[in-house]
Amino acid sequence: MRAALLREFHAPLRVEEVTVAAPQAGEVLVKVAASGVCGSDLKSIAGTSPVVSHLPCVLGHESAGVVEAVGPGVASVKPGDHVIIAMNGPCGRCRNCARGRAHLCSGRARMTAIMGLMADGSTRLSIGGEVVRPYIGIGSFAERAVVGEAMCVKVAEDAPLDLLALTACGVVTGVGAVLNTARVEPGSSVLVVGCGGVGLNVVQGAVLAGATTIIAADVVDAKLKLAEEFGATHTVLADDLPKQVGGIVRGGADYAFDVTGVPAVLAKAFAATQPGGTTVMVGSPAAGKNLEIPPAQLFGSRRLMGTQGGDATPARDLPMLVDLYRRGRLNLAGLVSERVPLDEINEAVEHVKSGAVARSVIVFD
Amino acid sequence: MRAALLREFHAPLRVEEVTVAAPQAGEVLVKVAASGVCGSDLKSIAGTSPVVSHLPCVLGHESAGVVEAVGPGVASVKPGDHVIIAMNGPCGRCRNCARGRAHLCSGRARMTAIMGLMADGSTRLSIGGEVVRPYIGIGSFAERAVVGEAMCVKVAEDAPLDLLALTACGVVTGVGAVLNTARVEPGSSVLVVGCGGVGLNVVQGAVLAGATTIIAADVVDAKLKLAEEFGATHTVLADDLPKQVGGIVRGGADYAFDVTGVPAVLAKAFAATQPGGTTVMVGSPAAGKNLEIPPAQLFGSRRLMGTQGGDATPARDLPMLVDLYRRGRLNLAGLVSERVPLDEINEAVEHVKSGAVARSVIVFD
Repeated sequence: MRAALLREFHAPLRVEEVTVAAPQAGEVLVKVAASGVCGSDLKSIAGTSPVVSHLPCVLGHESAGVVEAVGPGVASVKPGDHVIIAMNGPCGRCRNCARGRAHLCSGRARMTAIMGLMADGSTRLSIGGEVVRPYIGIGSFAERAVVGEAMCVKVAEDAPLDLLALTACGVVTGVGAVLNTARVEPGSSVLVVGCGGVGLNVVQGAVLAGATTIIAADVVDAKLKLAEEFGATHTVLADDLPKQVGGIVRGGADYAFDVTGVPAVLAKAFAATQPGGTTVMVGSPAAGKNLEIPPAQLFGSRRLMGTQGGDATPARDLPMLVDLYRRGRLNLAGLVSERVPLDEINEAVEHVKSGAVARSVIVFD
Repeated sequence: MRAALLREFHAPLRVEEVTVAAPQAGEVLVKVAASGVCGSDLKSIAGTSPVVSHLPCVLGHESAGVVEAVGPGVASVKPGDHVIIAMNGPCGRCRNCARGRAHLCSGRARMTAIMGLMADGSTRLSIGGEVVRPYIGIGSFAERAVVGEAMCVKVAEDAPLDLLALTACGVVTGVGAVLNTARVEPGSSVLVVGCGGVGLNVVQGAVLAGATTIIAADVVDAKLKLAEEFGATHTVLADDLPKQVGGIVRGGADYAFDVTGVPAVLAKAFAATQPGGTTVMVGSPAAGKNLEIPPAQLFGSRRLMGTQGGDATPARDLPMLVDLYRRGRLNLAGLVSERVPLDEINEAVEHVKSGAVARSVIVFD
């Protein structure tokens, strides 16, 4: 099969022929239909991802497709099923899974997947004798992927896979940050800082949660326009967030979501919440700079939370998102700026890097 | 009546005769039985409390007593009733009260009380023509206090008032931080950094919540011994907290509580939690230094929370604490290191400052 390989950091991906072995026990071979290009892919290319240490690596982790074959013991999906490939395949048995925190599963399969390996420590991808790792056990910038059964979430066949692919990362991260992490209540005021592919999903997550004041902030006016289409009630060209937000909601917002990954912006978002307010850092931060906040702001019963991919439990959250999409309550089509074939993946990466698009989606035949 | 006055910062309190006016509408005159000396009192004396700007001021805010008279319209207490004077008298009608967040009440009476004034903007204390303010609307280093009805929580008469006084601040802050702010679940691992008068209550709050691993950390060995009496299962002389805690609970604690008010220690406590862990800053921080944390630690779904006095709703939490005490499940006697008369208040303040005692309690005849 053909796959886009990261062979060296800071270099373009290279589309090559890769050999895919048959799925082993508990594994599923998926024919990938579509895979979104996400900020984490850019970070991997830049060499700043802590989980991409062994090259070559097939990037891509926001995908959906059709099951082509299953290994021994696989019971929940069969060839022909439409599936979203979740970023996390919880074991269901570790302490975190047992506590309802599947997003922090510490089972062996999840731990190896993060490092690009199957549960047995090997991979199903190779070129000649060379081992190829799939990014976080997925590697969906490829015609096929072999993933653990727990990462396959079977979905209705009447929804387009190129849109469902987006739910696996950007959508579940944004919506999950609102519903699972912050647990925004109806009637809340919500600030969203950064209105790219994930931020727009925070905005529509806030709509789903019943927030009545949704303030979108960005430094690019076009992104604010898009945020309005996704349900923002107010937009601000970010300058002095606490002051700007205070002018809309006296005392500050009930909830703030920073989707910029910049610690100094996160600190501003935090300062723009009212006493008792909750701020969520959405997404993985740039390494290096510390977050600095005045303890006096924390004292006012404010809260600061991280989220890992919207703290999602795939088997619960992905079917919910598909249902919401099918009922017209979740905007997926509006997230897609362009659909491109695998051969144009480097152009798609550039578009995401420049911020010119919400989401570029790689589509396969 | 006699009261201990703060007339200038950094100076000893002065016991003087103060005139108390009759309680007005919605106000209650309480004959104070006992008042604990707390870190906030030290901060007020040092001039670093943002709410103590007008002197003279009667400090003291952790108290209980007997109702002596009530103003027009007071319905919930009558002369002779035993009451704890809560630090917060929620209005019950503002948006925060309506959301179940009485600790963030923004009603007028709470706002004026914080500044040492009654709801009408005046005070009931004076010396000659000179206005005297009661600290956060209480001022219990005095034989009597006039407080808003909502600050009086009627309690059983078979419990000693000198012990119940402690529930108003130190106990409800520590226990509330566990039960209300962090909402520790049974079976959790809990780290408590700083085992003074409030930290010990975090320890016994963790016991009440069903935590099965309770790690007490301090730099004073005697305080660790006391923490064991309150239910700590492990003690560590704090040095390298993440490493020390990791040696007891693999990956770190589920919950951490910093009761030192030192941002750098708070950061260490945060780093000693596992992914998905929650850290609470208990108490008000020293001004000046920012809290610095690496965003990568936050990314692992970790949470950081402030708490205001244990995020308590007085009418719910104080009777609960009294009940627990009467059933032998809350250790109040063990918190009291000394009982002293008002005339010895400056010695008591020095003892608290030196860390030689858990709690000094001023008792009245």
